[in-house]
Amino acid sequence: MENCIFCKIIKGEIPCSKVYETDKTIAFLDISPVNKGHTLVVPKKHAVNILDIESNDLNAVSDVVRKLAPAIKKAMNADGLTITSNNGQAAGQVIMHSHIHIIPRFKEDGLKLWPQGEYKEGERQETAKKITILID
Amino acid sequence: MENCIFCKIIKGEIPCSKVYETDKTIAFLDISPVNKGHTLVVPKKHAVNILDIESNDLNAVSDVVRKLAPAIKKAMNADGLTITSNNGQAAGQVIMHSHIHIIPRFKEDGLKLWPQGEYKEGERQETAKKITILID
Repeated sequence: MENCIFCKIIKGEIPCSKVYETDKTIAFLDISPVNKGHTLVVPKKHAVNILDIESNDLNAVSDVVRKLAPAIKKAMNADGLTITSNNGQAAGQVIMHSHIHIIPRFKEDGLKLWPQGEYKEGERQETAKKITILID
Repeated sequence: MENCIFCKIIKGEIPCSKVYETDKTIAFLDISPVNKGHTLVVPKKHAVNILDIESNDLNAVSDVVRKLAPAIKKAMNADGLTITSNNGQAAGQVIMHSHIHIIPRFKEDGLKLWPQGEYKEGERQETAKKITILID
């Protein structure tokens, strides 16, 4: 897609620190890492995010995430990995080309999970139903 | 696996607010939601996390995440979705049975991305190489 920075990286028009590549994916380091070794896995076929990526591209990305996870953990001597994607601007998505972040995590690296809330009596079952009836 | 709370949910020994189920996966609401509608997608075959899940189970989970994403967004009237997994205690993993969180996101819901760092001159390319040589 024109003017998409990740499409330009995929075409080789913009350089990246490539970690891995397959016919359907490319993986490279995030230039502003949460922790060093923070890697992005990107489908070559342009999709905005989880709402429009095709199943075979998502599976290709998932397979690469699974392949890279132990290598990133070992290379960075990390204690764990956060694997995450921001889907939509409200979720913090900046580049509108689907990508999954693999972030090396360290004991006491100071990164906190988001606070957890709670449901009122009966509200959880009602919420589950609201979602279930909308599944295609 | 004995004493695994998610294996007990899968076997029906502990109740859950189920959203969806396939032969290889189950999806239910997180009991302590970051935002309401926060859903967990779980492989039925016990695996600890990304480091030991089998490819076919991960693809089954990914397919369900992709299927549920638009339904959760619509049901909760959300503006976006954060899709994330915590792999290892240092990454905030609490239940040691692989699962992916789908978290409805709202404009100005106050949840912040983690701060981003930077690489020194040359350090990014070196880091990419350190990872690449460890990929099986």
